[in-house]
Amino acid sequence: MSNYQERANEILARIDELAKITEEPGIVTRTYGSDAFIEAREKVESWMRTAGLETRTDNIGNVRGRLPGKNPIAKTFIIASHLDSVVNAGKFDGPLGVIMGLDLLENLAENKIQLPFNIELIAFCDEEGVRFHSTYLGSKAIAGSFETSLLDKADKDGVTLKEVIQKLGGNENRLSDDALKEDLLGYFEIHIEQGPVLYDANIPVALVSAIAGQQRIELVFTGVAGHAGTVPMGKRHDALCCAAECISGIEEFAIDHKTNIVATVGKLEIVDAASNVIPGKVKCSLDIRSADEVRLSFACNALKKIITEICTNRNIACTWNIIQETDPVACDPNLNNTLHQSIKNAGYEVVELVSGAGHDAVPLSAICPVSMIFVRCYKGISHSPLEDVEITDITAAVKVADNFILNLASNYNQ
Amino acid sequence: MSNYQERANEILARIDELAKITEEPGIVTRTYGSDAFIEAREKVESWMRTAGLETRTDNIGNVRGRLPGKNPIAKTFIIASHLDSVVNAGKFDGPLGVIMGLDLLENLAENKIQLPFNIELIAFCDEEGVRFHSTYLGSKAIAGSFETSLLDKADKDGVTLKEVIQKLGGNENRLSDDALKEDLLGYFEIHIEQGPVLYDANIPVALVSAIAGQQRIELVFTGVAGHAGTVPMGKRHDALCCAAECISGIEEFAIDHKTNIVATVGKLEIVDAASNVIPGKVKCSLDIRSADEVRLSFACNALKKIITEICTNRNIACTWNIIQETDPVACDPNLNNTLHQSIKNAGYEVVELVSGAGHDAVPLSAICPVSMIFVRCYKGISHSPLEDVEITDITAAVKVADNFILNLASNYNQ
Repeated sequence: MSNYQERANEILARIDELAKITEEPGIVTRTYGSDAFIEAREKVESWMRTAGLETRTDNIGNVRGRLPGKNPIAKTFIIASHLDSVVNAGKFDGPLGVIMGLDLLENLAENKIQLPFNIELIAFCDEEGVRFHSTYLGSKAIAGSFETSLLDKADKDGVTLKEVIQKLGGNENRLSDDALKEDLLGYFEIHIEQGPVLYDANIPVALVSAIAGQQRIELVFTGVAGHAGTVPMGKRHDALCCAAECISGIEEFAIDHKTNIVATVGKLEIVDAASNVIPGKVKCSLDIRSADEVRLSFACNALKKIITEICTNRNIACTWNIIQETDPVACDPNLNNTLHQSIKNAGYEVVELVSGAGHDAVPLSAICPVSMIFVRCYKGISHSPLEDVEITDITAAVKVADNFILNLASNYNQ
Repeated sequence: MSNYQERANEILARIDELAKITEEPGIVTRTYGSDAFIEAREKVESWMRTAGLETRTDNIGNVRGRLPGKNPIAKTFIIASHLDSVVNAGKFDGPLGVIMGLDLLENLAENKIQLPFNIELIAFCDEEGVRFHSTYLGSKAIAGSFETSLLDKADKDGVTLKEVIQKLGGNENRLSDDALKEDLLGYFEIHIEQGPVLYDANIPVALVSAIAGQQRIELVFTGVAGHAGTVPMGKRHDALCCAAECISGIEEFAIDHKTNIVATVGKLEIVDAASNVIPGKVKCSLDIRSADEVRLSFACNALKKIITEICTNRNIACTWNIIQETDPVACDPNLNNTLHQSIKNAGYEVVELVSGAGHDAVPLSAICPVSMIFVRCYKGISHSPLEDVEITDITAAVKVADNFILNLASNYNQ
C-alpha cells in the first residue's frame, strides 16, 4: 500500500470517527453549538495538537491550528472547511476538507518540510446555517464581515446566538478580534462536489473556476378561483396553469443557456387548494444561479420578461419579489494555474467546474485570493445519508493537495 | 308591481330570513344536523304548513311537504333542493330551489289550481356533505340508495351519523321506509348556476341538459431530487418541470375539447420542497368532467396517454390512481321539451347548459326522469359570501316554473 493510500485510509477513519459524534444516534446531525458540535471540535483540536499545530478556538467557535513557516512574518495561507452539518447529513460535506487539511499539515510536519509561508488550518463552526438560518457564521467572523445584528437572533428553542457563543466559551463583543488582519497568500478548500458531473464523467477531482451567484425570487400568480365543474375552459384564469407555463418557460430558457445558468422552482403552493377548485393564487420560489455576474443579471431580466409575457397573455397578475441576491465569486487565476498543474502532475484530467452551491470561500474572497477543489461523490448525492466518496478519490485528492502546497512553496518568493 | 315581482320579493325575503339562521353569526354556515340546520328546517316546515301542504320530516332529516292532486292515486312530481350549506357559504345555493318550490305550490293553492298529479316538495337535509364528507345523504335516502355503512362514520368531533339522525328525531333503522316507492312523474330542481355562462351571456335562466360525470385522479410524479445549484440543467429529472408540462398538456387538450370536457389540477404538492432543492416527487389532483360518458372516457384515456408520453420522454415515473368515478346523468328529454317551451313562453332565449357540479338530481335519476333549471348568479361566484342573484332573475325563474308546472299539467293524461 502506497503512502498516499495509507493517508487516505487514515482520513476516512477520522471522517468515520467524526460521523459518530452526532446529536441523534444512527444519523449524522451536528449543528452549530450543539453538544455534538463541541465534542467534534475538541476531537479536531486534539488531532491538530498531536499534528504539532498551535491551536486555539476563536470567539465565534472556529478551531484554528497554525503551522508557522520558516519566516514568521511571511504571508499566511488558509486551508479550511466546516465541521457543522445539516440535519440527517452525509459524513463528507465539510469534514472531508478539514481532515484532508489536517493530513496535509501532518504529512509536512512528519517529513520535516518547512514552508516559506505560514499555514492556518481552520475548521469553521457554522457553514450550513441550520440553527440560525444564517450564512457562513464562522468564515464571516474570519473575514471581518460578521453582522453583529445576528447576535440577538434566536433558534427554534429561543436560544440566541449570543448565548450559544457564550456557551462555546467565546465573547460576543470580541468577534472582530478574530478577523484575519495579517498578509494572506490565499485560501484553499477541499470539498465534495455535491453534484453529478465528476461521477458521470468518471473523474476523481476538479478545480473550481467560480462559485455561482444567486438570485432567489418569490413569484406570486393571482388569477381567479372557481368551481372545477362549472367554469368552462375558455373562461378560466387558472393561476396554476399560468405557473406551469412559466415553469416550462424557465426550464426551456435555462436548458438553452445550460453552460451558464441553472434555474429551479423548488417550492410551489396553491393558496386554498382543493381538487374541485380552479387555483386562484399560486406562490412559488425561483432560484437562479450563474458563475458570471453579467449572465446572471441577463438571465434574471430575460426570465422576468418571459414570465411577464405569459401572465399578460393569460390576464394573470404576477409579482416578482427578490428574496436574496449574492454575487458570483471567481476563484483566483494564479492559484488555479497552480492547481491546474498540480492535478495534471498527479496524473488526472483537469476539469473546471462552477460551484453551484455556496462555500466558505465566498466571504473569504473579500480578503484574499480563493481556490477550491471538488472531489467526486456518489451520484452527486449530498445532504443525505447516501453521501459517499470512494477511497481512491480521497487518494487522488491527497496527491493533488500535496502537489498544490509544494508548488505554492516553490513559486513563493519567485 | 306585477304579481311575479311581488312573489320574487317574498322569495328573496325568505332566503334572507334563512340566511340569518347560521352556526356562526355574520356568515352563513348551516351544516347537516347543527342547531342552525334544525331551526331552518322548522322554519321551512312552518312555511310549508302555512301554504297548506301536508308536512313531515323523514328519518334522515329531510322536510317534505305534499300537495295532493285531484286524484290521490295519480303520479307524484318531486320539486326539491337542499337546506344545508358549506362553511362560509352564500345564501342562494340550495335555499333558492326550496323557497321557489314553496312559492310555486303556495301560488297554486292561493289560486285554487288543482293539478292532475300530486306534488311533493322536499328540502334535502344534506347535499354539500361537509359534516361527514359524504355525497347526497338526503336525496340518496329518498332514492333508496343510502349506504348504511355510513351510519357509524364520525364527524370531526367524533359524533356519528347515527347519533345525528337520532338527535334529529329519526330512526336510523327505518331510513328505507322513506324511499319513494310510488309512481313518479319526475323530479325538478331550481338552482343557481354556480358558473359564469349566464352572467357573461346576460341571460336569466337556462335549462340543464345533463349533469357531468367525473373522474378524480391522483397523479404522482417521481423524478430525482437534487441540489438546485450543483446539478446541471441537462442532468435533471425534475418532477415539477414534468408536472408543469403535463398541466399545460391537460389544459391544451381540455381547451381543444372545451364544449365537451373540463379538466382541472386543483391540488399540487412537492414532497420535501425547498427553494434550493430540485423537486424529486410531486403529487397532484386531476378532476375531469363531461356530460357525455363516451367523451369522458375518451378524455381520460387521451390525457393518460399525453401524460405517459411526457413522463417517458423525461424519464420520470408516474402513477395514475383513480380516486372517484361518477357517470354523467342526462336530464329527461320530455321534461326538457316542456321546460324549453316554458322558458320560450316566458319570453327568454332558451340556453342549454351542462351542470359541471353535482346535484340531488343525480341520485334521483335512478328512480325517475329528472330536470333542472339554472338561475344566473353574479359572476358565477358560489360557495362564497359574494354569491348573489338579481331579483329580476328570480322573477324570470318564477315565470318559467309556473309555465312548467302548468304545461306539465296540460300534457298529463294526454
